[in-house]
Amino acid sequence: QVESDERPLSVSQEGIGFKKDSVFLLNLRFRMQNRFGYFSTMDNIDKPGIEAVVRRLRLRFDGYVLNSKIGYYIQLSFSRSDQDLVSGNVSQIVRDAMVYYNVSKKLYFGFGQSKLPGNRERVISSGNLQLPDRSIANSTFTIDRDFGFFAYSTINSGPKHTVFLKGAVTSGEGRGQLVSPGGLSYTIRAEYLPFGVFKNVGDYSQGDLEFEEKPKLSIGTSYNFNDGTNRAGGQLGSILPNAVDLQTFIADLMFKYNGWGIMSEYFDRKAGGFEYTADNALAMNRIPRGTGLNIQLSRMLGRKHEVVARYSMVTPEKGFESYQYKLQNKALGYNYYLNKHRVKFQYYIGLDNRQHPGEIAELRHTFTNRLNTMIQIELGI
Amino acid sequence: QVESDERPLSVSQEGIGFKKDSVFLLNLRFRMQNRFGYFSTMDNIDKPGIEAVVRRLRLRFDGYVLNSKIGYYIQLSFSRSDQDLVSGNVSQIVRDAMVYYNVSKKLYFGFGQSKLPGNRERVISSGNLQLPDRSIANSTFTIDRDFGFFAYSTINSGPKHTVFLKGAVTSGEGRGQLVSPGGLSYTIRAEYLPFGVFKNVGDYSQGDLEFEEKPKLSIGTSYNFNDGTNRAGGQLGSILPNAVDLQTFIADLMFKYNGWGIMSEYFDRKAGGFEYTADNALAMNRIPRGTGLNIQLSRMLGRKHEVVARYSMVTPEKGFESYQYKLQNKALGYNYYLNKHRVKFQYYIGLDNRQHPGEIAELRHTFTNRLNTMIQIELGI
Amino acid sequence: QVESDERPLSVSQEGIGFKKDSVFLLNLRFRMQNRFGYFSTMDNIDKPGIEAVVRRLRLRFDGYVLNSKIGYYIQLSFSRSDQDLVSGNVSQIVRDAMVYYNVSKKLYFGFGQSKLPGNRERVISSGNLQLPDRSIANSTFTIDRDFGFFAYSTINSGPKHTVFLKGAVTSGEGRGQLVSPGGLSYTIRAEYLPFGVFKNVGDYSQGDLEFEEKPKLSIGTSYNFNDGTNRAGGQLGSILPNAVDLQTFIADLMFKYNGWGIMSEYFDRKAGGFEYTADNALAMNRIPRGTGLNIQLSRMLGRKHEVVARYSMVTPEKGFESYQYKLQNKALGYNYYLNKHRVKFQYYIGLDNRQHPGEIAELRHTFTNRLNTMIQIELGI
Repeated sequence: QVESDERPLSVSQEGIGFKKDSVFLLNLRFRMQNRFGYFSTMDNIDKPGIEAVVRRLRLRFDGYVLNSKIGYYIQLSFSRSDQDLVSGNVSQIVRDAMVYYNVSKKLYFGFGQSKLPGNRERVISSGNLQLPDRSIANSTFTIDRDFGFFAYSTINSGPKHTVFLKGAVTSGEGRGQLVSPGGLSYTIRAEYLPFGVFKNVGDYSQGDLEFEEKPKLSIGTSYNFNDGTNRAGGQLGSILPNAVDLQTFIADLMFKYNGWGIMSEYFDRKAGGFEYTADNALAMNRIPRGTGLNIQLSRMLGRKHEVVARYSMVTPEKGFESYQYKLQNKALGYNYYLNKHRVKFQYYIGLDNRQHPGEIAELRHTFTNRLNTMIQIELGI
Repeated sequence: QVESDERPLSVSQEGIGFKKDSVFLLNLRFRMQNRFGYFSTMDNIDKPGIEAVVRRLRLRFDGYVLNSKIGYYIQLSFSRSDQDLVSGNVSQIVRDAMVYYNVSKKLYFGFGQSKLPGNRERVISSGNLQLPDRSIANSTFTIDRDFGFFAYSTINSGPKHTVFLKGAVTSGEGRGQLVSPGGLSYTIRAEYLPFGVFKNVGDYSQGDLEFEEKPKLSIGTSYNFNDGTNRAGGQLGSILPNAVDLQTFIADLMFKYNGWGIMSEYFDRKAGGFEYTADNALAMNRIPRGTGLNIQLSRMLGRKHEVVARYSMVTPEKGFESYQYKLQNKALGYNYYLNKHRVKFQYYIGLDNRQHPGEIAELRHTFTNRLNTMIQIELGI
Repeated sequence: QVESDERPLSVSQEGIGFKKDSVFLLNLRFRMQNRFGYFSTMDNIDKPGIEAVVRRLRLRFDGYVLNSKIGYYIQLSFSRSDQDLVSGNVSQIVRDAMVYYNVSKKLYFGFGQSKLPGNRERVISSGNLQLPDRSIANSTFTIDRDFGFFAYSTINSGPKHTVFLKGAVTSGEGRGQLVSPGGLSYTIRAEYLPFGVFKNVGDYSQGDLEFEEKPKLSIGTSYNFNDGTNRAGGQLGSILPNAVDLQTFIADLMFKYNGWGIMSEYFDRKAGGFEYTADNALAMNRIPRGTGLNIQLSRMLGRKHEVVARYSMVTPEKGFESYQYKLQNKALGYNYYLNKHRVKFQYYIGLDNRQHPGEIAELRHTFTNRLNTMIQIELGI
């Protein structure tokens, strides 16, 4: 066994690598997103508000041990607004902690905590977004991260036709949960790329920064059944008085060509599997269900500038309109890429519309329309 | 003063080292433990439960500054189930933060936060365990970590006879405590190794992965007096209405030979130094006291496979049986070592027995017997 | 574009550097402060207390991306006593997260979270202090850290005359705050160095470890207007029932010559811009306002030993004496510098005096005089 340690360290465009053949590879990266923004009305108080925060600050370790078949991926988040503190005051620093076994280039398995193979917008790293935050459709209906078993395979069914199949069996309670009762969560996803793979994994990065020379398309669809979850959003949200079965259907697409980019996704969520009682009615009626839509169109202006438009909406399921918000967002964005998504400046302006016809105190509608604008700088290696 | 920085980086079997002579050495390591398990009954609810968590995710820095006499050791824990959140919602990220002064190879002093020289099972790193968690005897009676002054010495009293003497004077309130009243905690420990030292510090690593060619034995005994602690377990546990004096006596042993391993320990804890009142009686009666026993037997099957059996029990002190659980655990484990304890797969199956004859609401006995089984993967450098 | 990666790693007196020209530079550093101390009376209970803690444990990343014009600075804190947990139980790990744009050597801008250009004692890193903690004047009146826009410029108005001008427009609510109402915070600061710059940035490091050969002086003055903050101390403190406008005037100086050092600062804070009501009167009267003074004198005894004396006091504004403490501290310190401020041993003994003439339950005066003594070891790279 000959080990080369002549070059144990490599500093590349993508972080810092420490390597010893047959022992391990460790890549180290960090990134932060600093934001200064303005809301004409805050979420729950009828006053203007300032958002001045380190939105995300992440440390990432990935690589392999023993040989490249046994991989790992760890991501830690340190900023307050990036730790799920909204739904509790327990700091959740660990975002990803995965062990992978690579059977071949076309098949690998994962065990640990990571993003479920759900909607594309969610699976795209927050470091590869073209608007500062994901859409309202995502925040209402995403299946987010979970802990369990994951499988990923690639099928080439023709000269360029590519199919990705993904699946996961997970706890159904989301990241960082301790012992929990109830059933598991089952996720399957298929993606079809009729014109072959994108440059530089561009089907999971927003904006056509690579200027695809021929049109590239990925169509994806996911289905999740969360058997007896205790949280209002399955992997996310407040604790419910009774367990609920959630079904989430997702369809999404990414299209890129010559600096143009389109990303879109559609959600449909149903909830059931429990009985209404006087005690649980309000909480169970407020479980987010219905449909969500997001569509983003972007155009590179030269190699460094980009303009983006987004429309997204959330529509409650019929019969639940007085318990849940109907949401709309229209937004424009501008990006200046200094080093692609690693180092960029972002400007955002959006209109939020929020309505519900009910009179429930817990759903105070302090705004129906508001303006939100912000700048954000991302810096990382 | 000539400084060599031709090889400031070394990537070894044991992490990544950054070195500059007469300036510092920094070794960087990480490890994670991902777990998926099943309980036929949860701790406090009579329902089956799933444990699907990143059990431990640690970052470790150690080395020296100026010269090898001044050492340091820092360990951070990031996963939720590894931050003492059970007894509060204050995240405790810092596990170890020590400064060492090495007088000689046989004598060194430490100042900071670290494990007390208590029971062997606790002092063994969670990365060197042969079952996914430590025993119930440890979790009930360990003296865990604390902040203060530590001393370690080695005495060779014959050709192979080796004695380790260890002591500590610490705050007595455990890790991450702010200003606290009351007396200190005093710990002494002696270990006797009649047949010389173990290969690769094997007296503090479970399982005979090194296949000792001759029998090796270490017998240890510790005594801790915690003067006026405010927590039910001294360095651990809930806050008490009155300070209590705790005495803990510990005896333990490690034996290894040709792939066989035995680890055993015994605890005896007494509590006193306070007066019972109507207000404090329940809390003070529930302070864990009595005896604990743990015995583990293991056998390597070839270089990579291991089977383990454990029996452990906790018996409340006479007179307190209706306030404290009587606990028993019988368990079997299997380990597949890909790179010794650094990268391993673990399977566990155990039976938990829990009883108390009292009728106190705070001690609801939702189970008397349950099954617990899990898999765990550890990966680190 | 020729990139040199022959020396991507450098291990220097100041941490570990990873460098790739035109891609990035990353410097990695850590430091910890371990402390064992005694209070003859605790803050809120009339009992002696032990402080045995990892007072600070920090990780620091700084460097640049693309080219040296685009800098960054990240500092994380992990120990419990270093996370603002006193005013809440939300862990605040991120201390600094800044992006800098260096227009020239004499002008640069910052965006993100960092220390405001306020009192000198606060801006000096906790790793460069000559006493274990900052003064009571600082803890009562500092404007601390905030998130927003920063500007720094240098003007040389004569052979040695140097002026630093600094300013910041920030959220006014302190670090790690989410969306908040109300106005911003405006800070300006000017510093005048009549005899030129200090060796090794000594105007922002306590103690004359560099033995200035000629007298060096820096006089600074800051003014902060915090428009409509919701916290009692502006960037710090408990949440108020009504927003308040705070004005803070600061004057400070640093003098060093031949091993002698003097650091002094003066604060004056006023609060207004709200109406008293029956409900808010107590909280608003307890907003810290008045004047603060701190003066420290130090003398190096040889290259490694130093003695320090401090006097500091806080005087409530007239009319608020029955709502706020009048504070005094007299202290002596001794430092043994093994590697300047990076590795040092510190001893401290101080007398705290605390009085208020009022009879408000919330301001129980459990002590008027107490003794506080401690040792602290700092170790870092």
